Amino acid sequence: MDKIPILRMGAFLLVTIQVDMHDRLALTLQDDLTNRIVETGARGVLIDISTLQMVDSFIGRMLANIASMSRILDAQTVVVGMQPAVAITLVELGLSLHGVRTALNVERGMELLKAAITPNVDGSAHGAVEA
Amino acid sequence: MDKIPILRMGAFLLVTIQVDMHDRLALTLQDDLTNRIVETGARGVLIDISTLQMVDSFIGRMLANIASMSRILDAQTVVVGMQPAVAITLVELGLSLHGVRTALNVERGMELLKAAITPNVDGSAHGAVEA
Repeated sequence: MDKIPILRMGAFLLVTIQVDMHDRLALTLQDDLTNRIVETGARGVLIDISTLQMVDSFIGRMLANIASMSRILDAQTVVVGMQPAVAITLVELGLSLHGVRTALNVERGMELLKAAITPNVDGSAHGAVEA
Repeated sequence: MDKIPILRMGAFLLVTIQVDMHDRLALTLQDDLTNRIVETGARGVLIDISTLQMVDSFIGRMLANIASMSRILDAQTVVVGMQPAVAITLVELGLSLHGVRTALNVERGMELLKAAITPNVDGSAHGAVEA
């Protein structure tokens, strides 16, 4: 296991994290993901963490980094499928996932992304609400 | 790592295989997947194997089993993202993945599934072409 697959779904990229992350895998993912955003012109990144039973500060920082990098490349990041226990742990650890949006599942995450990249009818540039 | 996540995408389910499969994991996947097909009424299953560098007879049989079970539950299966080396190995091993459809990537797999479940305009029941 040397890399995490990145699936293209229309204007979005989907990453499913299933394995324990370690430094090199996280760096590879950041490299691959930023390259894919540039190649495909993706406007959004969905990161599914539904199988993660635990999120430590390393994963939390990695998610925040990916969100920041994507934002610079004009893509929004949504973390989906978080387990209740993970949310509890994150708050107890004092990790607020600053700048990272979340949604209950992939479908809702896609709706969130679609709403965020579609300009409002009333003339304002973006329908996105900043976290 | 005790289970493989199954993501719902509209009428389809998406499974990304990233880890080495062993007996129990394969059984858990079959259980989870068939349950999810029944729960969600999914019409199609996409299995992404883009990170697999090698497919042996065990994985080949598992994919064929999943396709057969899904078919009985009225869902079609498409395997996507196969590496060229995997295709070569499969043929050399004499594994033809009978009854399993393939597509180059998730997007094409979704198009294939959409075409397969949409009735033809000319009056025939299904647009699907059996493999």
